[in-house]
Amino acid sequence: MDALIKSIGTVQSPLKRLEDCPLQERESQTAAKLLILPEFADGIADLQPGVKIILLTWMHLADRTELKTQPRNNIDAPFVGVFSTRSPHRPNPIGLHKVTVLSVKANVIKVSGLEVLDQTPLIDIKPVID
Amino acid sequence: MDALIKSIGTVQSPLKRLEDCPLQERESQTAAKLLILPEFADGIADLQPGVKIILLTWMHLADRTELKTQPRNNIDAPFVGVFSTRSPHRPNPIGLHKVTVLSVKANVIKVSGLEVLDQTPLIDIKPVID
Repeated sequence: MDALIKSIGTVQSPLKRLEDCPLQERESQTAAKLLILPEFADGIADLQPGVKIILLTWMHLADRTELKTQPRNNIDAPFVGVFSTRSPHRPNPIGLHKVTVLSVKANVIKVSGLEVLDQTPLIDIKPVID
Repeated sequence: MDALIKSIGTVQSPLKRLEDCPLQERESQTAAKLLILPEFADGIADLQPGVKIILLTWMHLADRTELKTQPRNNIDAPFVGVFSTRSPHRPNPIGLHKVTVLSVKANVIKVSGLEVLDQTPLIDIKPVID
């Protein structure tokens, strides 16, 4: 299988460096903007403020060759298979992020609870799964 | 952004045609196998039976140009922006599926609750997000 991932937009975030990102994003209240490319704007027409959504990002700085990893904050921990972790370093570095829509204006979506680096490509938006 | 998605394996499923797939997968008890490519087997070393995981698939038969869609079972329904839906037809046809691991033997993972077509490429496995 050979398939090309398209960016549908970009995250605009106050987090400029990896060290700015928290280890867990559950408690995050950081607000970020999603700048949707104009050619995909029709796809976001029905997003409403207050709704929880899942964002899929492409963690473009990741090492795609890693298959075992350690927690970032514990170099004494055992190495674990990446498919049991949320490490960005994995064969397809796709991030999943549950966030809340704050507003939608034209092709800009403001969300809360998103902890990803500024300029991270956005590749999909989906309803929350149960 | 131009990035190539890699298949990490393939779904082996009793569902051979789109018409075999239920409209909602919540109630599904279908068992399926994930055949992980040998070069990625180290990444699944820590998956355990009984654990819930999220699978990311690449819905290779999708129409990637659709931005508005209708429910498959209701042609009178209004068209809705694809990013508010789970339609497979979307710019990056990535499927998210919450499933339960039944067994892991070498590079074969048996799961329950997965409703995707036979031979669908698998692109990632992640822990469940809250």
